[in-house]
Amino acid sequence: MRNLHDELRYSDGATVRRAVIEGRWQSPTRGLARGFVQTGLVAVPERYAADFLLFCSRNPKPCPVIEVVEKGGISKYAAPGAALWNALPGYRVYQKGHLIYEGPRIDDYWRNDLVCFLLGCSYSFEYLLEEGGLRLKGNREGRGNPIYVTNRECIPAGVFRGPLVVSMRPVAADKVSEAVLLSARLPLAHGAPVHIGCPEELGVDLEKPDFGNRVSIEKNEVPVFWACSITPQEVALRSGLDLMITQSPGHMLVTDLKVMELLT
Amino acid sequence: MRNLHDELRYSDGATVRRAVIEGRWQSPTRGLARGFVQTGLVAVPERYAADFLLFCSRNPKPCPVIEVVEKGGISKYAAPGAALWNALPGYRVYQKGHLIYEGPRIDDYWRNDLVCFLLGCSYSFEYLLEEGGLRLKGNREGRGNPIYVTNRECIPAGVFRGPLVVSMRPVAADKVSEAVLLSARLPLAHGAPVHIGCPEELGVDLEKPDFGNRVSIEKNEVPVFWACSITPQEVALRSGLDLMITQSPGHMLVTDLKVMELLT
Repeated sequence: MRNLHDELRYSDGATVRRAVIEGRWQSPTRGLARGFVQTGLVAVPERYAADFLLFCSRNPKPCPVIEVVEKGGISKYAAPGAALWNALPGYRVYQKGHLIYEGPRIDDYWRNDLVCFLLGCSYSFEYLLEEGGLRLKGNREGRGNPIYVTNRECIPAGVFRGPLVVSMRPVAADKVSEAVLLSARLPLAHGAPVHIGCPEELGVDLEKPDFGNRVSIEKNEVPVFWACSITPQEVALRSGLDLMITQSPGHMLVTDLKVMELLT
Repeated sequence: MRNLHDELRYSDGATVRRAVIEGRWQSPTRGLARGFVQTGLVAVPERYAADFLLFCSRNPKPCPVIEVVEKGGISKYAAPGAALWNALPGYRVYQKGHLIYEGPRIDDYWRNDLVCFLLGCSYSFEYLLEEGGLRLKGNREGRGNPIYVTNRECIPAGVFRGPLVVSMRPVAADKVSEAVLLSARLPLAHGAPVHIGCPEELGVDLEKPDFGNRVSIEKNEVPVFWACSITPQEVALRSGLDLMITQSPGHMLVTDLKVMELLT
């Protein structure tokens, strides 16, 4: 696996997707195809699609829409030709607010009336921050970043409602401006932080992440919180659709878009 | 005085300078001529001018150069026609590293070989932040912001050396990104914060400002530090020039430039 990881790290999006489709890669995609945009997936039955698009429109920081893929599930823009039912290395399937399946194969659940939303993800701004010389500890420690469900509600739309979920990265106090300025250039990857310092104001206990792993904060570092792609999964749990499919956390669609193409 | 303040608040730069020259305004200029750029002043004998320009070039955050006014002391760009020996409401005069005069009249000290540097000042980004809806407590409490001499050294140039001086404003944790993004658009007014959170890393005790007044920090607020125009005054104290003239803190040159003209 290690050799394949190294190979895919400097490959392109299409190469990663081929490894996924052939069953050779079923792990998180962080660090693969460096410089290429990765996205989360939210697939909902067609009758909910307009409401979910409205939810994204009202909550662009947690849910930045990179592509809406109409019925049939074939991407046209971000990863042209990719079939979204097999191009991601891991999925979650929710029915009526329950997680009923997590894994790499969703043939039993896929339906042709699903509308798919490809949503920007933090890996893109992490790439930009790392290229900018910021050392991201979650990545250094190789365990990913802690993720917290906050006390802030997203703005609801139709059946879709739920709390804002954030990821946290400790940033040195003299690098916080740089982290804000770089990530702000990528509104399609959650954009600028939603909150800096004062975790208790978000209802967050840093020692107890809801997902991911605790990470240490040094005395010269500040906790910086970005909106997180796991937000729609919390929404899936609460909205009770008969069917909703998302990526498994960290198991993203690796697209053909370059991060630099998304810069504003 | 109150009526004149209200009158000058919504006037232009030339009107404020006229009040200054006529001796009707000898107080700090914060809040006057809203939307107009205000600058600090550093005047040095000609033989030091190249070194001071180099110092500014190496330390653009504390010393952003808006105009260099050659011998004679008449502004051509920022406040065309303004005589810099009487257009500011308050001056400080340093000789050999000592403050020897502070007040509104410098006729006894002015020399025709002085080269003047007009340096951007925080009032410009404060205007932008306030227009953007951020409530700045130092201004609300009407006492100005606390200013601290830090443990960071500026990059020296010739005789010019000294510590970075910063101003601090408490910002709500969910508004810090906005404060960074707005102030970053004004590199000629100190630009983005140099430090966010972790005051002890700057060698700063928030309770003990070196200048200005202590300000309270609520539990939803983070201390945000910007480079400060008082930096060159600390430099004046340490560099021991035979003559150096600066503005008195807060007693700025009000120019004819609009803040919005400086946006990048």
